[in-house]
Amino acid sequence: MALIVQKYGGTSVGAVDRIGNVARKVKGFRDRGDDVVVVVSAMSGETNRLTDLAKSINPEMDPREADVLLSTGEQVTIALLSMALKSLGCDARSYTGAQVHIRTDSTHSKARIVDIDESKMRHDLNEGRVVVVAGFQGADEHGNITTLGRGGSDTTAVALAAALKADECQIYTDVDGVYTTDPRVVSEARRLDRITFEEMLEMASLGSKVLQIRAVEFAGKYNVPLRVLSSFEGKEGPGTLITYEEEGMEEALISGIAFNRDEAKLTIQGVPDQPGVAYRILGPIGDANIEVDMIVQNIGADGQTTDFTFTVHRNDYEKALKLLQQTATELGAREVAGDSKIVKISLVGVGMRSHAGIASTMFEALAKEGINIRMISTSEIKISVVIDEKYLELGVRALHSAFNLEQAPAAVSD
Amino acid sequence: MALIVQKYGGTSVGAVDRIGNVARKVKGFRDRGDDVVVVVSAMSGETNRLTDLAKSINPEMDPREADVLLSTGEQVTIALLSMALKSLGCDARSYTGAQVHIRTDSTHSKARIVDIDESKMRHDLNEGRVVVVAGFQGADEHGNITTLGRGGSDTTAVALAAALKADECQIYTDVDGVYTTDPRVVSEARRLDRITFEEMLEMASLGSKVLQIRAVEFAGKYNVPLRVLSSFEGKEGPGTLITYEEEGMEEALISGIAFNRDEAKLTIQGVPDQPGVAYRILGPIGDANIEVDMIVQNIGADGQTTDFTFTVHRNDYEKALKLLQQTATELGAREVAGDSKIVKISLVGVGMRSHAGIASTMFEALAKEGINIRMISTSEIKISVVIDEKYLELGVRALHSAFNLEQAPAAVSD
Repeated sequence: MALIVQKYGGTSVGAVDRIGNVARKVKGFRDRGDDVVVVVSAMSGETNRLTDLAKSINPEMDPREADVLLSTGEQVTIALLSMALKSLGCDARSYTGAQVHIRTDSTHSKARIVDIDESKMRHDLNEGRVVVVAGFQGADEHGNITTLGRGGSDTTAVALAAALKADECQIYTDVDGVYTTDPRVVSEARRLDRITFEEMLEMASLGSKVLQIRAVEFAGKYNVPLRVLSSFEGKEGPGTLITYEEEGMEEALISGIAFNRDEAKLTIQGVPDQPGVAYRILGPIGDANIEVDMIVQNIGADGQTTDFTFTVHRNDYEKALKLLQQTATELGAREVAGDSKIVKISLVGVGMRSHAGIASTMFEALAKEGINIRMISTSEIKISVVIDEKYLELGVRALHSAFNLEQAPAAVSD
Repeated sequence: MALIVQKYGGTSVGAVDRIGNVARKVKGFRDRGDDVVVVVSAMSGETNRLTDLAKSINPEMDPREADVLLSTGEQVTIALLSMALKSLGCDARSYTGAQVHIRTDSTHSKARIVDIDESKMRHDLNEGRVVVVAGFQGADEHGNITTLGRGGSDTTAVALAAALKADECQIYTDVDGVYTTDPRVVSEARRLDRITFEEMLEMASLGSKVLQIRAVEFAGKYNVPLRVLSSFEGKEGPGTLITYEEEGMEEALISGIAFNRDEAKLTIQGVPDQPGVAYRILGPIGDANIEVDMIVQNIGADGQTTDFTFTVHRNDYEKALKLLQQTATELGAREVAGDSKIVKISLVGVGMRSHAGIASTMFEALAKEGINIRMISTSEIKISVVIDEKYLELGVRALHSAFNLEQAPAAVSD
């Protein structure tokens, strides 16, 4: 008998019959003797419907009132799911974020959870009830309704699991786990049984969108075992468990290969090399609210000037290029170049900390396919390269095969 | 400068452009210097949409969860109206029932208000804000969401007005006030400038459905001046003020004529006259959840038996007739008769307390038109008669004219 927090997203509760499926799934856990707290999102489409209503009044939504409005979406779902559970003879009780005292700061539309009072939920669990909580929302110290922003329901689930010291937090979604890479690119991609929080953060931020980054961070911080699995029938399975690094995991050099098609690269060449030059280049970019991802700096061939390259989101490419050209004039740089037809591929794995030779295996595999590397950036558990967009699939497949990711590492298989 | 509580029903806020109209109307009061608290219902259609969702899960809606579900309807409206007010430069803040501490008992779907903490609203009013409150809802002592049942938004408005000691509670609806009788029956029907709480209660319960009875009772109990008026453009006007009886009102013998087409009459004749006979006749009717309206008992011609007549809702007629036939057999009564083609007409007026001759004027007016009276029942401020359905319009017009209701009484005109 375990205490489990489960989260079902908007697609999983997108229609009345799907809510019935979720209720049956939850009842299965109850029947096996588990205590269950369920966190749900708004039915898919509902948030857009409400947003459209508000925007027809004023395209600039008032933040406080937008939260009052949008939080009704989850409130509808908790009521319907509780009704469905009770219809199955499974006692249940629904709560809004405010009702279970999910206290947040007052930053409307992207509030952060400050505190949770778990006593009410604990009481219901002791009474044998399933507790159904509205995701994505809370209330500030004055009782104003707040929302946590995109993906907030994942964060709610993890925060409840932390407050209740749950045995596991299960995130039900439309995929059945985290894969070594995108199965649409590499058909041999393998579902991972386990992955560490750090690896998951790198995978998520690099474009393998399964979980919200904030939820993973939160789970890592409070050491909440997090499991990603499918809510759809015919796709049941153990999913992927996201936990702290453990003994047996050491053998898995590389967990997966992430990639990101949304990047563009900008280079300013022949900048006189002097202190503060990085700030003078990136300052105007940041002021324009453009996020910079990779940054690489080399001393130029002459030893007097430097070449500076960075990547931004492809949508910001034109704007960034214009800003960089201004900066180049001011700094007396030789040239500005850019390329929006690039992609980033990253190897992710905690194992690379203690294993040499990962980078060279990576570069060799790409070279064998005649793929030119345009940029390299490394961190403790990740190596990223930028290559031409047209080589994306070829590169990912070559790396997947070079590191034998289609085979489960012996020590971690179960 | 006054403190006004205004209530707008589902039709008045049924679409985004109508919410805009309401916002402009509210702003008009603010611009004149009034403090305004606005109570709103769910957008028309919304409650039905939510109910349909719930019933597709289980036709028997769980009461607690139904309240969680349905209360979202008003929550959407308060957010949208607050947004609309702010767009007009009129500062506003929305609150759910729970947020302004409308505390109720725990009778889900028809909870009663126990207490209201007005401090939060008072603070906002002092800050110059319009306070927008979700009607129809509250929370019990454990924080569970409750709803007040049909027409509950009227009750919310009156309760807030009582708690805030407001100068007036204005109920905006689709009619521009309370009339002496239904203008569709008597074209000379006149809008009343004032009416007492007691008269309004008699008018409402007799079929002139403008306000919910509970709201009027509440207003009477806490002496909240209540005004009914139209929310639709082109129908602006002073409406009808519902207050306690005052000096100058004495002259108005009769305030109005109510009627009810939904009644049916049942008679049991020749019942042996003995104690407990009324209970033995009406007991089975009550046990079958059939509400009885008028009751009249006469000693029969022989002095040994009694005739007993009562009215029920026309929908319950067949069922009541069957039950009465069983009772007649048990009691050894002579005959059971019934008529579903009858109507009830009632004269209502606090003035009749101190004036003789009202009843005879009424009966004379009906006799002149050849209308046979089948039943008579009187209370302190009301005389009701039952007549054949076909004479309804003729009877109402005759009475309207006999009591000169088309003319405003001198002492109350303004």
